[in-house]
Amino acid sequence: MLETKLIYRFEEGSASQRDLLGGKGAGLAEMTNIGLPVPPGFTITTETCRRYYELGGRLPDGLWESVVEYVHWLENATDKQLGSSEKPLLVSVRSGARFSMPGMMDTILNLGINREVTEGIAKLTNDRRFALDTYRRFLQLFASVVLGVQRSEMEEVLERQRERAGVAQDYELSPDDLEAVIEGNQAIIRGHHPEGIPEDPWQQLRMAIEAVFKSWNNERAIAYRDYQRISHDLGTAVTVQTMVMGNMGMDSGSGVLFTRNPSTGEKTIFGEFAANAQGEDVVAGTHNPEPISSLAGRLPEIYQQLESTVQRLERHYRDVQDVEFTVERGKLFFLQTRAAQRTALAAVRTAVALAAEGIISKEDAIKRVTPAQVVNLMVPQFTPDSRTEASRAGRLLATGLGASPGAAVGRAVFDAKRAAAMGEQGDAIILVRPETNPDDVPGVLKAKGVLTARGGNSSHAAVVARGLGKPAVVACNEIDVDVDNALFRVNGLTLREGEEISIDGATGEVFAGAIETREPKIEDQHEMQTLLQWADTFRHLGVRANADTPEDARAAIALGAEGIGLCRTEHMLLYGPRLALVRKVLLASSNDEAGRRMYQEALDELESYHEGDFGGIFEIMAGKPVIIRLLDAPLHEFLPRYEDLFREVTHLEATGQSGTELDEKRSLLHVVEDLREQNPMLGHRGCRLGMTHPEFYDMQVRAIVTAAAKMVQRGVSVIPEIMVPLVSNTAELHLLRERLLRIVEDVQQREGVNFHVPFGTMIETPRAALISGQLAHHADFFSFGSNDLTQMSWGFSRDDAEGKFLRHYIETGVLATNPFVTLDQDGVGRLISMSTSEGRLTRADLEVGVCGEHGGDPESIIFCHQVGLNYVSASPYRVPVARIVAAQAALGVGEGTA
Amino acid sequence: MLETKLIYRFEEGSASQRDLLGGKGAGLAEMTNIGLPVPPGFTITTETCRRYYELGGRLPDGLWESVVEYVHWLENATDKQLGSSEKPLLVSVRSGARFSMPGMMDTILNLGINREVTEGIAKLTNDRRFALDTYRRFLQLFASVVLGVQRSEMEEVLERQRERAGVAQDYELSPDDLEAVIEGNQAIIRGHHPEGIPEDPWQQLRMAIEAVFKSWNNERAIAYRDYQRISHDLGTAVTVQTMVMGNMGMDSGSGVLFTRNPSTGEKTIFGEFAANAQGEDVVAGTHNPEPISSLAGRLPEIYQQLESTVQRLERHYRDVQDVEFTVERGKLFFLQTRAAQRTALAAVRTAVALAAEGIISKEDAIKRVTPAQVVNLMVPQFTPDSRTEASRAGRLLATGLGASPGAAVGRAVFDAKRAAAMGEQGDAIILVRPETNPDDVPGVLKAKGVLTARGGNSSHAAVVARGLGKPAVVACNEIDVDVDNALFRVNGLTLREGEEISIDGATGEVFAGAIETREPKIEDQHEMQTLLQWADTFRHLGVRANADTPEDARAAIALGAEGIGLCRTEHMLLYGPRLALVRKVLLASSNDEAGRRMYQEALDELESYHEGDFGGIFEIMAGKPVIIRLLDAPLHEFLPRYEDLFREVTHLEATGQSGTELDEKRSLLHVVEDLREQNPMLGHRGCRLGMTHPEFYDMQVRAIVTAAAKMVQRGVSVIPEIMVPLVSNTAELHLLRERLLRIVEDVQQREGVNFHVPFGTMIETPRAALISGQLAHHADFFSFGSNDLTQMSWGFSRDDAEGKFLRHYIETGVLATNPFVTLDQDGVGRLISMSTSEGRLTRADLEVGVCGEHGGDPESIIFCHQVGLNYVSASPYRVPVARIVAAQAALGVGEGTA
Repeated sequence: MLETKLIYRFEEGSASQRDLLGGKGAGLAEMTNIGLPVPPGFTITTETCRRYYELGGRLPDGLWESVVEYVHWLENATDKQLGSSEKPLLVSVRSGARFSMPGMMDTILNLGINREVTEGIAKLTNDRRFALDTYRRFLQLFASVVLGVQRSEMEEVLERQRERAGVAQDYELSPDDLEAVIEGNQAIIRGHHPEGIPEDPWQQLRMAIEAVFKSWNNERAIAYRDYQRISHDLGTAVTVQTMVMGNMGMDSGSGVLFTRNPSTGEKTIFGEFAANAQGEDVVAGTHNPEPISSLAGRLPEIYQQLESTVQRLERHYRDVQDVEFTVERGKLFFLQTRAAQRTALAAVRTAVALAAEGIISKEDAIKRVTPAQVVNLMVPQFTPDSRTEASRAGRLLATGLGASPGAAVGRAVFDAKRAAAMGEQGDAIILVRPETNPDDVPGVLKAKGVLTARGGNSSHAAVVARGLGKPAVVACNEIDVDVDNALFRVNGLTLREGEEISIDGATGEVFAGAIETREPKIEDQHEMQTLLQWADTFRHLGVRANADTPEDARAAIALGAEGIGLCRTEHMLLYGPRLALVRKVLLASSNDEAGRRMYQEALDELESYHEGDFGGIFEIMAGKPVIIRLLDAPLHEFLPRYEDLFREVTHLEATGQSGTELDEKRSLLHVVEDLREQNPMLGHRGCRLGMTHPEFYDMQVRAIVTAAAKMVQRGVSVIPEIMVPLVSNTAELHLLRERLLRIVEDVQQREGVNFHVPFGTMIETPRAALISGQLAHHADFFSFGSNDLTQMSWGFSRDDAEGKFLRHYIETGVLATNPFVTLDQDGVGRLISMSTSEGRLTRADLEVGVCGEHGGDPESIIFCHQVGLNYVSASPYRVPVARIVAAQAALGVGEGTA
Repeated sequence: MLETKLIYRFEEGSASQRDLLGGKGAGLAEMTNIGLPVPPGFTITTETCRRYYELGGRLPDGLWESVVEYVHWLENATDKQLGSSEKPLLVSVRSGARFSMPGMMDTILNLGINREVTEGIAKLTNDRRFALDTYRRFLQLFASVVLGVQRSEMEEVLERQRERAGVAQDYELSPDDLEAVIEGNQAIIRGHHPEGIPEDPWQQLRMAIEAVFKSWNNERAIAYRDYQRISHDLGTAVTVQTMVMGNMGMDSGSGVLFTRNPSTGEKTIFGEFAANAQGEDVVAGTHNPEPISSLAGRLPEIYQQLESTVQRLERHYRDVQDVEFTVERGKLFFLQTRAAQRTALAAVRTAVALAAEGIISKEDAIKRVTPAQVVNLMVPQFTPDSRTEASRAGRLLATGLGASPGAAVGRAVFDAKRAAAMGEQGDAIILVRPETNPDDVPGVLKAKGVLTARGGNSSHAAVVARGLGKPAVVACNEIDVDVDNALFRVNGLTLREGEEISIDGATGEVFAGAIETREPKIEDQHEMQTLLQWADTFRHLGVRANADTPEDARAAIALGAEGIGLCRTEHMLLYGPRLALVRKVLLASSNDEAGRRMYQEALDELESYHEGDFGGIFEIMAGKPVIIRLLDAPLHEFLPRYEDLFREVTHLEATGQSGTELDEKRSLLHVVEDLREQNPMLGHRGCRLGMTHPEFYDMQVRAIVTAAAKMVQRGVSVIPEIMVPLVSNTAELHLLRERLLRIVEDVQQREGVNFHVPFGTMIETPRAALISGQLAHHADFFSFGSNDLTQMSWGFSRDDAEGKFLRHYIETGVLATNPFVTLDQDGVGRLISMSTSEGRLTRADLEVGVCGEHGGDPESIIFCHQVGLNYVSASPYRVPVARIVAAQAALGVGEGTA
C-alpha cells in the first residue's frame, strides 16, 4: 500500500495543483469546483507516474484497486456502466504534465467501447454509422498508442475502402464500409498481436493508463523537454474522464463560444452551435453549425445557463474565455475553457473593458496587451482572408527580413527619382532596390513601402523606413534586382517595373499582385489611448523619440514622446540644396582665396538651413529635451557613389571621349576615391570629423544655440542638448567639449540670453563603454548607440552580416535572436551595464539612455528598465510600444530573465 | 640666523642628496667623495632657494655670511684668492635642480675676473688673447644673465669687429680687437645700467647667486616644468666651483674620454686630449686634439692616474662612463662623469662584459639594453654620416609611418609583378604602391623594402613586411602614387619607376637616391646571444612566433621562438596555383554534377598543398606547439579586385565587344559583386565562413591532422593546435569544436596514431572577450587577436584610420600612442584582462596568449606579463626583442605603469 493519495476526483483538486495533477487535471478540477457542469472524472497524480518509473515500469501496489474504486464512483455519478451496452460509460484517458507539452504524449478516447457496446450505442443514438465510426477510431488509436501498431498501416485500410466506395471523406462511408474497415484493421492488429485488442473495458483501461505513463519517456517527449529545458523527472498525470455525446438527438449538440467577440472585443457571447453533433463533427464539416444565438430559440434554458456561466467564467479566470461545451440529452457540459485568442483590437479593448468593469486591475490590463498587438493597431494589415488567398494561389514570391511592420501594396519601382515622381502623382508604389542609400530617401518618402535584396535590420533602408513608419522588407536574398533593366527576378519569375506587389513588413513576406489591406482607424485607438495613459503612470523609464525634422517631432509628440532622444543632423543635410552645399564644402579647395570664400559661403548657408530646422523642432518640443547629435556620417556618404562615378568615367574613357565633362568627373572621382574607405563604419566619421574638420561642428553648434536663443527670445522654453558621436577616447570628448561650449557661451552672449545646454556623448564604441568612468567627467549624459555597439562588439557589419551569414545563423539556431533587433544582454548589455554604473560612479546624476534601434524593441526595453537607464529613444512609431513595455517592465514583466 | 645647514662642501654631500643639492651638486659631491680630484667647490641647497622665494625674493639672513666663509675655505684649499691678480680664483656659479632641466636655468662662468685680474691672467698664462677673451665672455654672460642685457646686442659688437679685422672666427681676433670688443660691450652695458658690471668679485658673486635663484622661475623653466610635469616648488641649488685652466702651458690641457669604446664596446680607454687648451677650445676647433693614448708619452703619470681612475669609476657607477677632465700645471681634475652614450652594439657588448666582470648582475645587464637596441642590431641601418649628408642635401622626400624597422635602398617599382621579376634578377628594388593587397605579396617577397601611401601600422603591407623582416614605410600621405604611369609625386617632385630611393622603416623617412647602409653582422651577435640566453632564464612569459611557412618556422627557431603562436592558413593559399584553386572553389557551381566534382577536386588539391606545408612546419617545430588558425580572410580577398574587373568589363562593353571573354568576365564580376562587402572587416570571414562553408574548415583540419599523423609515424613529436578565428558567440565555438574534433578522431583512427590536438579560439571581437567565461567551456586555449580587438574596440579601421585621422590624433597629441602599435591598456587591455581572468575561472589551466602585432611591442609585452598571459607571439624578427622585454618585465621594468 502507498501512503499518499494516488487519485483525485475533479472535485478534490484545484488550479493550483498543476504539479500534482498536471495542467489538464488541474484545469478540470478548477472548472468543476467553480460549479461548472463538467463531465465527471478523476486524475492519477504525477507522483504515481514517478513511482511507476522508480519501480522500473510497474504500476505501484494498490493503484489498480484505487482506479477500480474511482471508476465505480464514476459509474454511480453518471448512471452509466463500463462495458454496458444499455448505459455505456465511455471515457477518455489523457496525459497531462506540469508544463504544456502539446502533442508529445498520448491520449486515448472512447475507451470502454467494444463490439457489444458499439451495437448498444447504435441503438441509443439511432446512428449506426456513428457507432461504428467511434469503434473504428478507438481501435486505431488504442492499437497505435498502446500496442505500437503503425498508424499508416491502418490508415491505408481506410483509404482503400474510400476508393472502393468511391467517396472522398470518411463521413461518407456507409456502415457496411465501416464494418469492412474495422475488419481490415483488426486483421492488421492481430498480425502484430495475435490476442488483438481486449474486449474487456477494464483491461483496456489498465493498458491505457500504463501506456500514458510510458509516453512520458517516448523519444519525441524527451527531445521536446530537452529543447524546452523541462526537467525529465516531473512525470505525467493521467486523467480519466467521462465522454459525453452531443449526437444523442435534437436535445443534444456541441458548440464553441467566446465570452466576448474575439475580433472586436464587443461584450456579447460569440460562437457557434451544431445540434445533434459531436464537437469533432463541426470541425470535420459534416454538420453546419449555426450562430450561438440560435440556441436561445432551440434550447432556451441551455442558452440562459451559458449566458450566466460566461460572466462567472470571466470573473473567475479574469479574462475572456474560449469555451467548448456539449449538450447531451438536454444536459450542458463544459469540456474546456481557456483564455481566448483575440485580435489586437480585441486585446486592447477587452483589457481596458475588464479593468473598467473591475474584473482586473489597470496593472493587469497593461500586462494583457503584447507589444505586437500595439504595433498591429498602428499600421496597415493584410486582411487575413486576402492573405490566405494569395498564399494559396502561390503568389508568395519570397520572404526577407521584416524590418518595419505594416502591409503595403503598390507598383514596383526600381529608381528613387521615378518613385518620388510617381508617388507625388498619387500612385501607390513600392520602392525596390538592391539596397538603399541616402540618395534613395526622396523615393522612400513617397513610397508606400520598401523592399531591398540586401541590408539588414539596421541597414539604411530599415532605419529610414522605421523612422517614417513605412513597411519595409530587407535582406530578401531570393530576389535579384536588376536596376538597369528595371526588373527583379525571383525563383524563375521576372517582375517588371509597374507590376503590383504586396509586402508585409512584419513577416518579411513579398507577394505578387495586390492583397486587400485594412488601414488602422482612429476609432480603434480610443481604448489604446486609455491604456497608454495608464501605462505612463506606472513606468519609470522615460520614452523619447528619434526625430530629425519638425514633422517627425510632431509625430513624436502626438504619440506621446517625452522628448527627442536623437536628432541626426546628417539626415537634415542629405536632401536637395543642402546636399549640394555639403558637396561644395567637401570639394572647395582651401588653397586659394576663391576656394576659401566658396567654402565659407557654403558653410554659412548650411548654418542657416540648420537654424531653421532646429528652430522648428524646438518650437514643437517646447519645454521638452531635444538631444542633437552632431554630424556622424562618413563624408563620402554625401558624395556620389564611387561605383557610379567610376562606371561613368570608365565609360567615357573606353569610348574614347575627352573634354571638360571627363575632366570634371575625373577630378570628382579623385575626391571620392580619396574619401573612400575600406571599412567606412570604422572610419573617418563622427567626432573624428569634428576633430579634423572643426569648422563643421562649430557651425552646427552655432546653429543649434542661435535657433534656441531665438525661441527663448520669443518666450518658448527650450532644452537643447548637444551630443557627440563615435567617441573612443577621453581627449576627443574633453577637447570638443571645451571648444563647443565656448561657442555656446559666445552665441548666448551675442543673443543676450542664457539657458542650460547639456553636453553629452554617444557610447557606441566598445572602448567608450570601457572607459566610461573617465568619459563621465566630460559629459552630462550618455546615450548608447546600440546599433554601432552591437556592430563593433560582435564584429557584425550591419550592412553585410544579415544577408551574408546572420540569417543563416538564426535559421539554423546558432543564434536565438538577431542582436540588431534584440539587445544582446551577455555582450552588448554587459557593456551598457558597466558603462552606466561606472559613469554614474563618476557623476551621480549622469543621464543615460539608449537611442539605437533597440530602443523600440520590447525585450530590449525591459533590459533597459532593469539596468536602470533613464530613458529609451525610438522611432516615433515605436513610442506607444515603448510606453506599454516600459510600464510592463516596471510591473515586473521579464523579471528573472536578465 | 637659519637653523638648517645652507651650504655643503662637495666633501660633505653625496649622490643620494639630489633633492637638497640638485643633480649637479650631488654628482660633484659623489665624485669628490670617491676620491676623484675634482676642482673644489660648494653647493647652496635647494631649500635655500625655496626660502628665497618664501621671503619674496630676498636672500635668507646669514646666507651671505656663510657664502663668504665658504669662499674663504675655497681660497685656502686652492691657494688662490678671489680678486687677486697674482693667484686669481675664478669660479663658476651654476644652477642644478632635482630633475635635469638642460639649458633652462642660468650659469655664470669665470666669475671673479675684472680688468686687473685679466692683466694678471695674461701674465700667468703668457696669453693675453686668452685673458682678454675670458674677460669678454664673462662680461657678456654676466650682463645677459644678471643684468638682462640682450645677448644679440653684444654679439653684434663682436661681429662688427670680426668684419673690421677681416677674420671669420673669434679666436682669430687679436688682443687689440678684443680690447675694442670689451670697450664696445661695456658701452652697451652702461647704456642699460650706468653703473656697469661691478669690478668687485664679491659683489659679482652675490648678484650671480641671486640671478640663479631667479632663473628657477624664468618663463622657459616654468614652461619646461609644466611640460615635464615637474613640481614648481622644488627650487634650484647653486653650485660654486673653482675654475681650472688647461691652458697654463704644456703641462696643462683638456680632454674627454670614454671608459670603453662607445661604438664597439671594446674595453680600452677611448678619447681625446688637447695640450695647453681649455675644454671649450677643443669644441671650437682652435686646438687639434690628439688621441688619448698620446698622453701616455706626454704626461705618463697623468695617463696612469686616468687609467686607474677609470676602473674605479666603472665599478663605482656600474656603467661605462663619459668623462671630462682638465690638467692644470701637471694636476689632473675631473669635471664631469656620466653614463656614456653608446651604439646598440656597444650597449649589448658592454652590458654582457660588465656582467662577466662582476661589475653588474645578469639582471642588470638585461635591463641595460633597450628594445630598440636589440632591433637595431638585427636590421640594416643607414650609416649616420650618409644619412646626415642626404638630409643636408635636401633629399628627404617625405615621412610616413615606420612600420617595419630597417633601412632599404633600391629602385622604385610600382607593380608587384615587375618588382618580383626584377628582384628575381638580383635588382635591389623598393615596391611602391598606394596600398598593398595579397596580389602584391610576390613583389614584396623579392623587394628590399615597401613604401605605401595609405594603410597603417597593421595594414597588409605593414604586417607582411614585418613578417618577412623587411623595412616598410606606410601611410606616407605626402606621396601621390600613380600606378598607371609608374611614378609618384611628392611636394612638386616626380619620381619615376627605376629611380633609386632609400627608406627607413624605423623613422618612416623616404629619401631620394641611395644612402649608404650597414648590414647586421653575425659577429656582432655573439654577446646578443649570451644576453638572450640570460633573458630566457629570467622571463615567465613564453615567446612564440607567427609563422606561415616552413621558412618562417626555421627563422623562428633560429631566433629562439618556443613554438608557433599563429600560423595563418590564408597566407598559405594566396599564391600561384593555390590561389587559382581557391578561386575554383568559390566559382564552382554546386548546382550540377560537373560543378560539384570540380569543387571537390579543387578542395582535394588544396588539402594536399596544406598537408605538405603543415608537414614541413611540424618537422621543423618538432616537439614545440604549433597553433594553426583556420581560414580567416574574407572570401573576396581571394578573388580579383572588383575595380579591376569592373574596368575590364566596362571596356569590353564600351568597345562593342562580345563573346566568351566578356561573358566569363561578367559572370566573374557577378560573383565578386556578390561576395563584396561594405565593411569586410566586420563581414563574412573567420569562423563565419567555417559555419556557412563547413567543407573548407573540414578540409583544413583533415590536412592538419593527416600531416601531423605522418610525422608521428616517422617518429617526430608534434603538438598541433587548432584555432578558430573571429568567434563572437558560444554556439559557433561549440558547434565547430564538436564537428572538427570528430574529424580529428576520424583521421587519427584512419592513420592508427593518437596524439593530443588542443582546440582553441581567437579572442578578437569585443564580445568574445565579454563572454569568455562561457567560451572557455569549449576552448583549451585563448589567443588574443589584438589587431582586430583594437580595431573593433576603438572603431578604428586599421586600413583607413591611420592615414585619415589617427596620425592627426597622434601629431596633435590627442592620443599619446598609436593603439595599433602599443596596446591600449584602458580599453583593449581591460578586455584582455577580463577575458583572461574569467576564462581561467571556468578552466583553470586555460592557456592564454597574444598573437596580434602587439606581441612584438615592448610596452605591450610588459602589459602581457603583468596580466599573467602565458606567452606572446610575434613576427620571427621580433622574437629576440620579446625575449629581452619579457625578461625585463619579470625583473620589474615597467612596474607601476600599468
